[in-house]
Amino acid sequence: MAKLTQLIDNEVFRAYATYATIVLLKMMLMSFITAYFRISRKAFANPEDMPASKGENAKKVLRTDPDVERVRRNHLNDLENIVPFFGVGLLYALSGPELSTALLHFRIFAGARILHTIAYLTPLPQPSRGLCWGVGYMVTISMAYQVLKAALSL
Amino acid sequence: MAKLTQLIDNEVFRAYATYATIVLLKMMLMSFITAYFRISRKAFANPEDMPASKGENAKKVLRTDPDVERVRRNHLNDLENIVPFFGVGLLYALSGPELSTALLHFRIFAGARILHTIAYLTPLPQPSRGLCWGVGYMVTISMAYQVLKAALSL
Amino acid sequence: MAKLTQLIDNEVFRAYATYATIVLLKMMLMSFITAYFRISRKAFANPEDMPASKGENAKKVLRTDPDVERVRRNHLNDLENIVPFFGVGLLYALSGPELSTALLHFRIFAGARILHTIAYLTPLPQPSRGLCWGVGYMVTISMAYQVLKAALSL
Repeated sequence: MAKLTQLIDNEVFRAYATYATIVLLKMMLMSFITAYFRISRKAFANPEDMPASKGENAKKVLRTDPDVERVRRNHLNDLENIVPFFGVGLLYALSGPELSTALLHFRIFAGARILHTIAYLTPLPQPSRGLCWGVGYMVTISMAYQVLKAALSL
Repeated sequence: MAKLTQLIDNEVFRAYATYATIVLLKMMLMSFITAYFRISRKAFANPEDMPASKGENAKKVLRTDPDVERVRRNHLNDLENIVPFFGVGLLYALSGPELSTALLHFRIFAGARILHTIAYLTPLPQPSRGLCWGVGYMVTISMAYQVLKAALSL
Repeated sequence: MAKLTQLIDNEVFRAYATYATIVLLKMMLMSFITAYFRISRKAFANPEDMPASKGENAKKVLRTDPDVERVRRNHLNDLENIVPFFGVGLLYALSGPELSTALLHFRIFAGARILHTIAYLTPLPQPSRGLCWGVGYMVTISMAYQVLKAALSL
């Protein structure tokens, strides 16, 4: 049997595993925030989700709400940005970067995405959210460049 | 050349590969269900998709339909939950868990997500869908906890 | 310390890393196209994003626009298709396929998704977009079949 533990024993891969798990958990947290706003704002998407799904009341709560939609946009933005980070970051971690350089990438990305969520949900005035998004985006681009430099094979 | 087959020879990794592929295929199935409902309900999102995209008829079928929107919410929910399972599960499988514990996680998750889709599309009365979602969510959280315990390196 | 570089030294894995990075970058490009259309069409989703968020003007630009929505559907379609390719492709690359077969899969998928975006945004008449989507879909199904054949362990 192969020694799978060899990957997780590698320092760069451990750093990647840590930060990738943190940002994926942060993304999963959005589901809870959506549920919280749906219940507190009484704005549901499915008839069967409504607390009292009978009569007139039902129609009133089967609606969209600006706060719920904001959380959902934030969740989708996470999918659009954290998924490429996960994928490119995995390949980057396997391409043999320096530990310090890799940690710098992972830490900046995780920080930028946590600040992005705070900026989105508060909401803070722009360009705070835009900057957080851009910083995370550039980290992923930088890792992609290094993956292609190490692995390019068309 | 490195022996890539060593990973796929590992029992835990093979179990992960099997269940990850199953849930990703399940997620891909949603595209077909969406297409089926769009055609049967005559509800399209793009003018060029309409069977007879001329005149009055066109306007009538460029619309949203409750059943199509339900499938699309289910698909998005899959993205929001199966993607973290794939990512966290990969790191978990590489962190050297017991085969029996790993299989338990993967099987419960796959079962929960298949039941979730059935509950969403039937639709079954709540809390059946909510429970399926919650079980899958907890499996991913449990794997994330074990990844962080094995790999934590901030 | 384990030699992580052994994975990236494998020819199949390098081909996977290259094409996976290319399609993830293509997906990330959609964020820029969305931003471009939001600004040029003056159609924003968040009040704080608007250039002059005061008075009447604000209400006018807090709206949806057909072109913006088209790009967003394209982006979501990428998530629904490129994410399974990334996941299934990774497992496929680790299951020890022939280099030439693997390259064929990766090249067809990358080409199909790039043409899909062109067909979606131009937009080209159907079935061009549908065909591009279907080709990419079948590549992922073919890889999934080979992963299950190599790894099946329920």
